[in-house]
Amino acid sequence: MPATDVSTLAAPADATVAQVGERGALARILPRLPVGASTIVGPGDDAAVVRADGAFVVTTDTMLEGPDFRAAWSTWRDLGAKAVATNLADVAAMGARPTALVVALAVPGATPVADLESFADGLAEAVQVLAPGCGVVGGDLTTSERAVIAVTAFGSLDGRRPVLRSGAQAGDVVVVAGDLGSAGEGIALLFAHAIVDGVEDAESARALRREHPRALEAQLAPVPPIGLGTVLADAGATAMLDVSDALALDASRIAAASGVRIALRSAPLRGFAAPLEHVLHGGEDHALLATLPEDAELPEGVLVIGVVEDGAGVTLDGEPLPDRGWDPFAT
Amino acid sequence: MPATDVSTLAAPADATVAQVGERGALARILPRLPVGASTIVGPGDDAAVVRADGAFVVTTDTMLEGPDFRAAWSTWRDLGAKAVATNLADVAAMGARPTALVVALAVPGATPVADLESFADGLAEAVQVLAPGCGVVGGDLTTSERAVIAVTAFGSLDGRRPVLRSGAQAGDVVVVAGDLGSAGEGIALLFAHAIVDGVEDAESARALRREHPRALEAQLAPVPPIGLGTVLADAGATAMLDVSDALALDASRIAAASGVRIALRSAPLRGFAAPLEHVLHGGEDHALLATLPEDAELPEGVLVIGVVEDGAGVTLDGEPLPDRGWDPFAT
Repeated sequence: MPATDVSTLAAPADATVAQVGERGALARILPRLPVGASTIVGPGDDAAVVRADGAFVVTTDTMLEGPDFRAAWSTWRDLGAKAVATNLADVAAMGARPTALVVALAVPGATPVADLESFADGLAEAVQVLAPGCGVVGGDLTTSERAVIAVTAFGSLDGRRPVLRSGAQAGDVVVVAGDLGSAGEGIALLFAHAIVDGVEDAESARALRREHPRALEAQLAPVPPIGLGTVLADAGATAMLDVSDALALDASRIAAASGVRIALRSAPLRGFAAPLEHVLHGGEDHALLATLPEDAELPEGVLVIGVVEDGAGVTLDGEPLPDRGWDPFAT
Repeated sequence: MPATDVSTLAAPADATVAQVGERGALARILPRLPVGASTIVGPGDDAAVVRADGAFVVTTDTMLEGPDFRAAWSTWRDLGAKAVATNLADVAAMGARPTALVVALAVPGATPVADLESFADGLAEAVQVLAPGCGVVGGDLTTSERAVIAVTAFGSLDGRRPVLRSGAQAGDVVVVAGDLGSAGEGIALLFAHAIVDGVEDAESARALRREHPRALEAQLAPVPPIGLGTVLADAGATAMLDVSDALALDASRIAAASGVRIALRSAPLRGFAAPLEHVLHGGEDHALLATLPEDAELPEGVLVIGVVEDGAGVTLDGEPLPDRGWDPFAT
């Protein structure tokens, strides 16, 4: 296995990662990534070193071609953006400020390096929009028959206590920050209209995206309200999570962890652009769902959707709401 | 997609992850994992929270079925052990003490939960042996046609400066801690003797492991000297990395990053049990390669294998040594 010749760094723009090798590909990707204000040692050594004030928040999430995304529907730029959004939403949901990411990527050797550059641009743009100051401090690039994207994200609590799922109390209000339902509507549209002869079709997906930008963008390149994580924590959030699997299912997780009932009202939920079924049971919104004391001053950008009661489970207008949502092994 | 019924937690021992669902599988895996002495919030929330004294060290590495391991050759316990060893070696190579891991795992739905329990036991045992006090603080479990293991590991510098690849100085001695060559010998043996009719064969691999335990264990379940990372840092290491791709290639990385020549001697390298070709060009040893000032007091367990000189590249007994090693895209 000969080592990569540095002359390949000057390979043509349409070179594949197999042609330029791991080091050649990294040489083209790394300069596109944000350094980050908390980075002490960035990519290139055995490990990175990141500033932390007594503790750090960490979450990890894997996106696989097939179960988690389709190459015909998502651009590489989308994948970069979504990998950042989904992971930073978990950091935000602890009441933390995102500081850093590491990104492990496995792709077929025939992948053009230009695709990885687009992926890096998607990462960089999402970081710029969602969490300026956050950096990509390291990663891993290897081969795979189908693409695998494994991101781990870090945050700083800046002296705050982490906001867990278990702190909701009867009498609290239930709020959501960000959109609900559009991502689920988007995936439903793609399955309905972007499969041709049983195969995911890129052209149909592009047409659908022009026709239904809200739902498709929410599914393919979501923009969750990351900055509201620390704002909700400072407003006194007693419990918080990001709605990754569906409002009904994720609300049931707060209910179970806190030993309370989450009583949702349909009226505010009908204000979302997506149909109520997707608002309740669609996944991948990555909105922040939080509970706060009744007398808390609610920050701008949050919507009250219910109250916390003594009891268990989740209700909608007083009726039990089934906790239907996303389980990767239940399809 | 119905949510997992908690009654499935009492599923039979031979249940698959598809049968018990993500939550059911996690309920059986998580109790087997070490909590860790630095863990403030462990698995189960949106993110974990880990203690850190001003900074944390972070590294990530992905193992894919196919390019990185073969299901017929590695047991699930091996995979857990190797995932820990490879990542903690990167933490140790910065001069840091491992504090935590997150583990993202993707497996086919037909995988028995018992296999994941074995994987968890492999993780736990390796942590116990290599870095007691380190914890598994979070992860991700999802579906994939072929298994994917993505681990991110963390360490504390405990006030030390990180040991980079770039600090080697002419006059330093070059040392190695841990074995060299056995892992490369092991993979060569497996390719030579554990493929039957073009397919990796589990029974042949087991027989080979009984016959060549040193080489096969080093390849399948390595035990690098993690604890010597902080010891070498305290002894004054000027540069350090873990030998993951091959001594020749990894030494060339220190040479390039530091702007020096690494002059190796063959005599001490011939003392390793594996043939010199594997010692020089085999990968996956995860030994620690370090440079220290000439007058440093060398800790027990390290072997002097050369000196740092003015110049560039790597030599063996004065002759240029080609930087052959492992590049995932160059096969």
